[in-house]
Amino acid sequence: MLQKVNLADKLAQFQDLWSPKAVGAVNDCHVKLVKLKGEFVWHSHEVEDELFLVLQGTLLMQFREGEVAVEPGEFIIVPRQTEHRPVADDEVHVLLFEPKSATNTGTAGGERTREVEWV
Amino acid sequence: MLQKVNLADKLAQFQDLWSPKAVGAVNDCHVKLVKLKGEFVWHSHEVEDELFLVLQGTLLMQFREGEVAVEPGEFIIVPRQTEHRPVADDEVHVLLFEPKSATNTGTAGGERTREVEWV
Repeated sequence: MLQKVNLADKLAQFQDLWSPKAVGAVNDCHVKLVKLKGEFVWHSHEVEDELFLVLQGTLLMQFREGEVAVEPGEFIIVPRQTEHRPVADDEVHVLLFEPKSATNTGTAGGERTREVEWV
Repeated sequence: MLQKVNLADKLAQFQDLWSPKAVGAVNDCHVKLVKLKGEFVWHSHEVEDELFLVLQGTLLMQFREGEVAVEPGEFIIVPRQTEHRPVADDEVHVLLFEPKSATNTGTAGGERTREVEWV
């Protein structure tokens, strides 16, 4: 029997920041949950678009030409090859939808790169 | 400048039932919003998985072997080639993620098939 997924239950299963967890797969895409606080690194993705749906808190998505504050019940899609930096003054919970090939730091790589685990 | 999308604002722009509206694209997938009330037709999708994230109300997802009640803050992914029928006793609002090729009635087709418009 197919199982539903409760977002709050999944969010309660991890506390680490900036480390997306997979919670579902739709064809070539993953559904992920991530907790953010502070500033991430500037990066972009070569071939992947990336959707950020905010569940809690205010996500400040910075682009080279400005920034967008994304609130709960709102999403923003960052197109491939678009430099961006997520910033969260207070802890933010986000649902991500993006191709399975996407990594959290994109083409920037570096020490903040994380493997995606399932929760 | 990239724009965010507010789900409540988009949901306020249409009232028709069982007619998914596109609100975003992530690579080969669409993000859609749909309002449901009553019973849909049994159908499946040949090659597309389909995610239903409930925003309001209780979505009863029926399968041939049983049913799952999906509440706000929960999602269910219906794998390709899995017969299913969404049912909503009261009006339900759902966010869908699925490949752009997916149609609402899948391989069943028929009079309840709808073209996807953007809102």
